[in-house]
Amino acid sequence: MAEWLDETEQATWRSFLRMHANLMTAVGERLQADSGMSLPDFEVLAMLSEAPDAELRERDLCFELQWEESRLAHHVRRLEERGLLQRDGHVDGGQSPMISLTEAGRAAVDAAAPAHVARVRELFFDVLSPGQVQVMGDAAAAVLENVAGVTDTDDKA
Amino acid sequence: MAEWLDETEQATWRSFLRMHANLMTAVGERLQADSGMSLPDFEVLAMLSEAPDAELRERDLCFELQWEESRLAHHVRRLEERGLLQRDGHVDGGQSPMISLTEAGRAAVDAAAPAHVARVRELFFDVLSPGQVQVMGDAAAAVLENVAGVTDTDDKA
Repeated sequence: MAEWLDETEQATWRSFLRMHANLMTAVGERLQADSGMSLPDFEVLAMLSEAPDAELRERDLCFELQWEESRLAHHVRRLEERGLLQRDGHVDGGQSPMISLTEAGRAAVDAAAPAHVARVRELFFDVLSPGQVQVMGDAAAAVLENVAGVTDTDDKA
Repeated sequence: MAEWLDETEQATWRSFLRMHANLMTAVGERLQADSGMSLPDFEVLAMLSEAPDAELRERDLCFELQWEESRLAHHVRRLEERGLLQRDGHVDGGQSPMISLTEAGRAAVDAAAPAHVARVRELFFDVLSPGQVQVMGDAAAAVLENVAGVTDTDDKA
């Protein structure tokens, strides 16, 4: 086939893709079975639950999650329909809508978190050394920043 | 909210999820635009292209990709409909069907690879040191093995 990555790079790239796919299946299926929510649903609710007064402007929530706007809008709509959060679309002066965790949302994330965290630990952190965790975190942050920069340049091209 | 991971673990977990999501968007959209295939499509074709005679038993392809059978079946069906691979379902003695890359499939993966590899380099490898790549590869392999072991135990429980 055509030129590809060197051996270590290729092994790393494929392991990374597989690790994500298999981990998401194993974590996501359990979360869905235990708590009836997807991992992205959980991420949205957890992020709100950590904010002061459990509310964030939609723009800030999007920034904190580092998601595309359309992806966040999709999950916010689903979670609002289920009564787990509230979106105040009637804002003055062009402010971004306020997204608030409801009492039901707080109860849902509190109920889901312990088993979910235990599952993430069991599958991911239990086999990684603190050094590996640190390197992965640093690498992920560098890649994230790079992806944001490159795709920003793409958009302007 | 309920108990969660420690600060470094939480930052690493979230960065990992975001890195994957943003990277897949940036890599996948470009591959789709340039070559009309998804990243999983590309992975299947690339794996076949590297095999002797560009063919693998479905069971071996599944093992090499480390995918769920149903996920592979879905992509094999799509790629067969597009004439990029051929699946010989008429096998004797209970052998797994043979999946072969067609000439069109070989042409498609050869045409897609250079730009795709350049994109993966630009977004991922260009900001990682060889040491970071090594640690990420080792960590991903350890997590993959662990996920396989844990979910195997789940299934037997």
